[in-house]
Amino acid sequence: MITIAEKINATISSVKTIIESRDEEALLALARKQAAAGADYIDINVGTGSGSAEDEKEAMRWAVELIQAEVETALCIDSADPEVLQAGLLARGDRPALINSTKGSDHYLESVVPLAKEFDKPIVGLAMDEQGIPKTVENRVAACAKIVAACDKYGVPQERIHFDPLVLPVSTDVKQGMVTLSTIQAIKEEFPACKTIMAISNVSFGLPKRAVFNTAFLHMALFAGLDGAIMNVLDEQLMGAVRTGEAAVGRDKHCRKYSRYWRNR
Amino acid sequence: MITIAEKINATISSVKTIIESRDEEALLALARKQAAAGADYIDINVGTGSGSAEDEKEAMRWAVELIQAEVETALCIDSADPEVLQAGLLARGDRPALINSTKGSDHYLESVVPLAKEFDKPIVGLAMDEQGIPKTVENRVAACAKIVAACDKYGVPQERIHFDPLVLPVSTDVKQGMVTLSTIQAIKEEFPACKTIMAISNVSFGLPKRAVFNTAFLHMALFAGLDGAIMNVLDEQLMGAVRTGEAAVGRDKHCRKYSRYWRNR
Repeated sequence: MITIAEKINATISSVKTIIESRDEEALLALARKQAAAGADYIDINVGTGSGSAEDEKEAMRWAVELIQAEVETALCIDSADPEVLQAGLLARGDRPALINSTKGSDHYLESVVPLAKEFDKPIVGLAMDEQGIPKTVENRVAACAKIVAACDKYGVPQERIHFDPLVLPVSTDVKQGMVTLSTIQAIKEEFPACKTIMAISNVSFGLPKRAVFNTAFLHMALFAGLDGAIMNVLDEQLMGAVRTGEAAVGRDKHCRKYSRYWRNR
Repeated sequence: MITIAEKINATISSVKTIIESRDEEALLALARKQAAAGADYIDINVGTGSGSAEDEKEAMRWAVELIQAEVETALCIDSADPEVLQAGLLARGDRPALINSTKGSDHYLESVVPLAKEFDKPIVGLAMDEQGIPKTVENRVAACAKIVAACDKYGVPQERIHFDPLVLPVSTDVKQGMVTLSTIQAIKEEFPACKTIMAISNVSFGLPKRAVFNTAFLHMALFAGLDGAIMNVLDEQLMGAVRTGEAAVGRDKHCRKYSRYWRNR
C-alpha cells in the first residue's frame, strides 16, 4: 500500500508555528521521522491561512528545498492554490512528487491538470465538484469522470491519477462510510488504470475509540480496492493495521511482512 | 449481525469430555455464558468422533433438551449426519433453530434440505460440493446454486438459506482470503434473498496475532455483505469488533451501539 505521511500540514497549530518561523530543525525532524517510519511520500502543506499567496509560495519553496536536501523520500506537494503547487514543483524539479490535488471543477482542472503534464508527475483527484462533496456514489464517480476527461485532454495518462473518494464523518451520517467504500469499488471498476488513496481519520470524527474505527475502515477500504492512504505513519498500531490488511487481501506473499511485523510485538 | 456461539463443539477436547460424561452442569454453564454474552444462536455439535451414530443422536437429544429447559436463546443444530440433525430438530420442536448444515452434494441435498421443509427451519448451506471446498469463487457459487435449486425443489424459500462461503487458511495460500470475501459478494449479487454467515477463525491458522488478523477479516467480510458469524462470543475484543464493523458499514443507526460499547472501555 502507498503510505503518504500527513504530519507536515500547517492546519496543525504546532506545524503552523514551524512554517511561520521557518524553523529548519523542527521541519527536518518531522520529515526525517516520517521517512524513517517507511512513508512512500511525505505530504507538504504550508497553507497557514494567515499569509498572502506570495508568502505561501515562498514557504512551499523553502520547505521542499530544505527537506529534499536531507531526505530521499518522495514528496506530496499539497495546496488548494495552483500557484503554490507550481512553486513546489519548480523547486522539486525532476525528483519524484505527487501533486495534491485537483477537484472535478473547471478552475482546478484548467490550472492543476496542466501542471501534471508540464512536470510529468502523478496527481491526486478529489471526487468532488463545484458544489462540494457529493453525498452519493454516482455523483462522486461523475466528478472523477470529469477529472479523467481533463487528464485525457491535457495528455496525462490515467495511470497517473490517484483518486481520493473522500471521507465524511459517520457520526453525522452513518451511511457515509459505505458511500466512500462503494466509491472506491466503483472507481476501480470504471477506471481500472487509476489508483485510489484516501485520508482515513475523518471518518471517525466525533466517535470514541477513533483508532479502532479507523482501522476497521482502512481494512474495508483495502478490500474495496484502496491503493494508498494519507495517514499518521508514526502510529505503530495503524502501520500494523496496514500490514494486516495487505495480508488479508492477498497482497503480502506468504504473509511475510505481516509475520515479520507482528512476531516481536 | 447474527452471532452464532461456537463453544459447544465436541471437537474441543474439554467439551468432548462434557458430552461423553453427560455433565449437565458444565454443559449448561457453557450455554448460559454464551447466551449472556448476547449470542443470537448457540451452536450444538456433539460429534465426538468416537461414539456410534445412535450415541450421537442420543447426545444431541440430551443436549438440546437440557439447554432449552434453561436458556431462551435459539439453537443451531450442528452435525454432518442428517439423522443427528433430525434427532435435534425433533427435540427442539417449534422453537427457533438453525440447521447446520448441508453441502452442495446430492446426498446432503436429498437428506438435509427436506428437514428444513419438514421442521420449517432456516438452513446453513456450505459453498462446497462432492469434490470438497472449491478453490475458486466461481465453483463455490456453483455449489451454492445447487443448494438453491434443491431448496426450490423441496419448497424451502431462499430467505431461509444461510450460505457459508467457507474459509481456508491464508498461511497456506494467501489468495484464499480474497476468494472467501469475493464469494460473499458474489452470493449477495446472485442470491440477494439469501444470508451469508461464516466461521472466521480458520483464516488465520498458522499466523501470529490471530485475533488481529481475524478482526481485519471480519471487517472486510462485513463490507462484502456478511450477515453473521460463527464465533467466540465470549471474546470481548471480537464482540467489540462486531460493533465497530456494523457502525462502519452503516448498520448501526447514529453509531449508538458502537458508542455505548466503547465509551466505557
